[in-house]
Amino acid sequence: MPISEYVYHRRVQFPETDASGIVHFTNFFKYVEEAEHAMWREAGLSIADPANDLRWPRVATSFEFKRPLRFEDEFDVHIKVAEKTRKTLRYSAELKKDGEVLAVGSLTIICARRPPGQPLRACDIPPDISARFEAARS
Amino acid sequence: MPISEYVYHRRVQFPETDASGIVHFTNFFKYVEEAEHAMWREAGLSIADPANDLRWPRVATSFEFKRPLRFEDEFDVHIKVAEKTRKTLRYSAELKKDGEVLAVGSLTIICARRPPGQPLRACDIPPDISARFEAARS
Amino acid sequence: MPISEYVYHRRVQFPETDASGIVHFTNFFKYVEEAEHAMWREAGLSIADPANDLRWPRVATSFEFKRPLRFEDEFDVHIKVAEKTRKTLRYSAELKKDGEVLAVGSLTIICARRPPGQPLRACDIPPDISARFEAARS
Amino acid sequence: MPISEYVYHRRVQFPETDASGIVHFTNFFKYVEEAEHAMWREAGLSIADPANDLRWPRVATSFEFKRPLRFEDEFDVHIKVAEKTRKTLRYSAELKKDGEVLAVGSLTIICARRPPGQPLRACDIPPDISARFEAARS
Repeated sequence: MPISEYVYHRRVQFPETDASGIVHFTNFFKYVEEAEHAMWREAGLSIADPANDLRWPRVATSFEFKRPLRFEDEFDVHIKVAEKTRKTLRYSAELKKDGEVLAVGSLTIICARRPPGQPLRACDIPPDISARFEAARS
Repeated sequence: MPISEYVYHRRVQFPETDASGIVHFTNFFKYVEEAEHAMWREAGLSIADPANDLRWPRVATSFEFKRPLRFEDEFDVHIKVAEKTRKTLRYSAELKKDGEVLAVGSLTIICARRPPGQPLRACDIPPDISARFEAARS
Repeated sequence: MPISEYVYHRRVQFPETDASGIVHFTNFFKYVEEAEHAMWREAGLSIADPANDLRWPRVATSFEFKRPLRFEDEFDVHIKVAEKTRKTLRYSAELKKDGEVLAVGSLTIICARRPPGQPLRACDIPPDISARFEAARS
Repeated sequence: MPISEYVYHRRVQFPETDASGIVHFTNFFKYVEEAEHAMWREAGLSIADPANDLRWPRVATSFEFKRPLRFEDEFDVHIKVAEKTRKTLRYSAELKKDGEVLAVGSLTIICARRPPGQPLRACDIPPDISARFEAARS
């Protein structure tokens, strides 16, 4: 069964806050990436599998911030496969606390390979990996 | 003279890299924010001035990544005021190394105030701060 | 029942690794602090409780590193209250993976208060907090 | 001329602060490492030189914290080679702002090599690298 979405639970840690008293915005991107990696584990995969030479560089990412997070807040990252192409995956993500949307983001990654001594180059997602993911309906 | 753009020079530090051997993408957002704060200092301001009760929460941000950065690379962040409204500033940013564009980003911030015991609320940018910035031509 | 020790389970996240392929050493200090805060929650407390004006600055900390951690490794932080004085708590910590010790650390914190408009100053740990912790036997 | 000490100038960046309003203590270790890498560059070296297979894992590190740093503070890291052995370098470091000592730390690193497909193992510091460093007098 391919995976289309995943909910990742997290608590805010102290160094993620800044002197304005809230979570520094760059951590929202870390939270989405943690959710992505957890979704891959759920799919039986690792985004950095020592057994293959694939890399998954980030192509583009964005966030709109609506409400802040504070120290020790518990929240969920709802991550979805929004689009799957031959070479790329695009995720959409919502951060929610107590049912309220805090932020909405997007992350696009591309499959790449680094032949020894050559630069990284984009390649098709191998079928056994591609088969594990499916774009979410909505 | 209001400021419209600024070039911030930086070197990659080791903890900014990750196990894939390149700078972790979240640091690109930190680099732009460092450039923003340097531009504010250049304008005679601090983004977190203890002498006022203003806050500048980040409303939205995005990045497109074209080429990686590695440990000890030197690069420049070219940040511009792309748009100025009554309450917001939107910056555009380019990361360049040896004249080559590595990544292109955008960051929108809003002026806010936190009255004691009340939630943060958006407010007009005070005239003495607004006067220091001007949207870049191009 | 006062608390003397706590075991905190954690998985390595990608941005915690660096270009040498292992967890950057500064994250070991973050892991211990996360374990400390989890131990405080277990004791019914928050290290940064908005309901009081206490602060817990770090006075000293150290680590000896024996074995590395890698992306997606799961490990435990065994944190103990090694010493409790009127104003300070000293923790010792061991990071373990599969029963093997990866690193051994120490962290000393002091109770402090910041009267409005004055600098932070050390103070006695309030009895209701002190009663929650007890130095471990061994 | 071997190098024995180096002064590294730095400004506090916003994400380095935490919700208590000061620099999170783990960043003091990052500052010392930045100073170390700058000292190596000053000695004509890179701590992560793609041209050799050496690694410099951190063996032990410690810090005593005396005064806090805040956003936009400028400070210096005074790093010294405190001891040089066949396989290790031990640095001592002082963070100073306006001549005042904020924190005092220590960092020990060991020279290691990772033969292909084998675990990392300690080795003697190569003569051309060892010759660039000398323990400071005091």
